[in-house]
Amino acid sequence: MPPIKINHIAVVVEDVQAALGFWHEALGLPLQHVEHNEGEAVDIAFLPLGDGEIELIAPFTSDSGVAKYLARKGAGLHHLCVDVDDIAAALERLKAHGIELINEEPRTRPDGTRYAFVHPKSTGGVLLELYERA
Amino acid sequence: MPPIKINHIAVVVEDVQAALGFWHEALGLPLQHVEHNEGEAVDIAFLPLGDGEIELIAPFTSDSGVAKYLARKGAGLHHLCVDVDDIAAALERLKAHGIELINEEPRTRPDGTRYAFVHPKSTGGVLLELYERA
Repeated sequence: MPPIKINHIAVVVEDVQAALGFWHEALGLPLQHVEHNEGEAVDIAFLPLGDGEIELIAPFTSDSGVAKYLARKGAGLHHLCVDVDDIAAALERLKAHGIELINEEPRTRPDGTRYAFVHPKSTGGVLLELYERA
Repeated sequence: MPPIKINHIAVVVEDVQAALGFWHEALGLPLQHVEHNEGEAVDIAFLPLGDGEIELIAPFTSDSGVAKYLARKGAGLHHLCVDVDDIAAALERLKAHGIELINEEPRTRPDGTRYAFVHPKSTGGVLLELYERA
């Protein structure tokens, strides 16, 4: 099995610019870009970190899933995403081990990336995203 | 400034062996070793992941800081640790930006690693550890 790598660590924040004051300006991580994502109603700042990146995610409406998460749990680490070579094979392997999946089958983003989430119940409390790059 | 890299992602879990059932056996991350740490009253499993590693941490008493965290917040992502080249310089830089630190000065582990924690108030909710390897 090829090695699994970190793709990103997602952090839900109240405000992307305020969070960049720490992660970019004070800590010194490079800022790749900030995306205004109308589809998911979030702003996302992408900051490369080693092999992967930190994503700072802030909702700009109050009714999205992320907005509700922020209201309920507060800002902080939200999920971990790892790259796998073959997401269909990875999901089959997880199912064979009785792991609870949020997405039983891979979903596809507009850029062709395939992804699926593993339920925190099966991971020790971590919302884990699997990615297969397009 | 040299690049900052991920050292580890710490996950607090109820039980290390149960968590290894997912991260090692089902997902397939290699297991480096499991440490029984009497000083901090935790068991820790180390699983290399890309440049860094996942640490699965489970308390084995009910009165440690980690045990209290687990009782209060439940299992899940606990903190992120990044390697910096010069921790003293990094802390000075953070202080100059008005960042709240849990450790104003670096502390030293028995293996010589120097570390300090940044307060989640200043990071957008993330408990962040800085490491300078010995």
